[in-house]
Amino acid sequence: MRIGFCQFPPLFGNIQANLDSLDSLIKEVEADVIVLPELCTTGYQFVDRNEVANLSEPVDGPTVQWARNLASKRSFSLCGGFVERDGDRLFNSAFFVTPNGDVHTYRKIHLFNRETELFDPGDRPPQVFQAQGTRIGMMICFDWIFPETMRCLNLAGAQLVCHPSNLVLPYCQEAMKTRCLENQIFAVTANRIGTESRVPGETLTFTGASQITAPYGKVLARAEEISIGCQVVKIDPTDADSKNVNPYNNLVADRRPELYPGLCGAKK
Amino acid sequence: MRIGFCQFPPLFGNIQANLDSLDSLIKEVEADVIVLPELCTTGYQFVDRNEVANLSEPVDGPTVQWARNLASKRSFSLCGGFVERDGDRLFNSAFFVTPNGDVHTYRKIHLFNRETELFDPGDRPPQVFQAQGTRIGMMICFDWIFPETMRCLNLAGAQLVCHPSNLVLPYCQEAMKTRCLENQIFAVTANRIGTESRVPGETLTFTGASQITAPYGKVLARAEEISIGCQVVKIDPTDADSKNVNPYNNLVADRRPELYPGLCGAKK
Repeated sequence: MRIGFCQFPPLFGNIQANLDSLDSLIKEVEADVIVLPELCTTGYQFVDRNEVANLSEPVDGPTVQWARNLASKRSFSLCGGFVERDGDRLFNSAFFVTPNGDVHTYRKIHLFNRETELFDPGDRPPQVFQAQGTRIGMMICFDWIFPETMRCLNLAGAQLVCHPSNLVLPYCQEAMKTRCLENQIFAVTANRIGTESRVPGETLTFTGASQITAPYGKVLARAEEISIGCQVVKIDPTDADSKNVNPYNNLVADRRPELYPGLCGAKK
Repeated sequence: MRIGFCQFPPLFGNIQANLDSLDSLIKEVEADVIVLPELCTTGYQFVDRNEVANLSEPVDGPTVQWARNLASKRSFSLCGGFVERDGDRLFNSAFFVTPNGDVHTYRKIHLFNRETELFDPGDRPPQVFQAQGTRIGMMICFDWIFPETMRCLNLAGAQLVCHPSNLVLPYCQEAMKTRCLENQIFAVTANRIGTESRVPGETLTFTGASQITAPYGKVLARAEEISIGCQVVKIDPTDADSKNVNPYNNLVADRRPELYPGLCGAKK
């Protein structure tokens, strides 16, 4: 199985231009699953919720339609971020579309910084689904800092986590080694590059270095911090099936949920 | 507040010799909390459970008595690992003793490798207690690979995690950066050095590199892989109080326990 990411700088506010950029980026890529950055067709730095609404789409909107067409034509699965509109609600969402037209979505459950004022928080648990013979889950950007996100995907059976991102801090890539070690899972973190300074006093520089991480925290690929392009690696997703790290320890079976008070309790 | 670790190679099976070694190691150290390795007075590689029983002690046995005397005399708190006997049960435990004679213990809840045949698994949740004006918890060695351990200590209010260890794998020190980042907590990982080959076909080399890690994953001190000695750093434990990583995000308040299905559920 070939999994990959594409790293590029989306142009703020121009969905069609970004789809065109992605078309030419993806044209030469041979892969089974390709992950694109968070909010890859809109850009990131919205001034206010009205702007978010103006660039929002229903799940059958232009971004996901484009992805379905490409996935069908090229026989791969495609994952990436978009602004999802559902009635009055606006989510920082990811789509995952398969060659046969299945569409899965995930609504970011841990919003970062000013996103908390712009988006509604995700209202569903992280889900695992089957695609191309592999059990796959999604999380978006800042979800990584909460170990609960990827742990839930692990406990739901995920072999591969697709992780569209717009990272502005320097911590995630190293931490993904820990996430993939503690869960023995593959992850594709697709980050964007470039700078946005649409909000006075808030210049955002996205940190690139998209990364594919394997069980035991092994880094299979890492992009440069400012390069545009795609990388693909070959994996065996069943390498994520055994949680045995020695003949006596299994990282799922050895959990002691009865001794984890407060982990699922109500907030204080 | 000054927190530190001592790193050394215990002599297998000779509690008094190890207490003597620790006495001379600690003699020159000026600190408020000193953390010693896991099983620091017995050594690690037990041939069978009988050997464990022979080197076990009740909580008021020679190891903890020694620690209480030293803590009282030197006005510091001392934490380290010992074999705890409670009736027929044998635990891989840690003690934490304060200058005024308080004794806290923790029984390792995630046993590593052949420990699962030698010890009883810890039967109590990780606890947080007050010592010298700081909220402190303990975990032991392999507990680190389960994010739930330190998360529970965080949710119980810990500012500092004392982490006696006998590490033989290369992953923990880097992962502790993620643990201290995701929880915004201080941690002292006290590892041992040396080699034990008491079991045919199982030579264990302990990896040293004891480490003091701060919020944001900052490494304040790291020992060499083979050196004997102690290191102490000065911290402000209240730096662990704010879980705010920006004006909009709090790493505790932003958790979504209602969307973490299975995290505390029964095992499959």
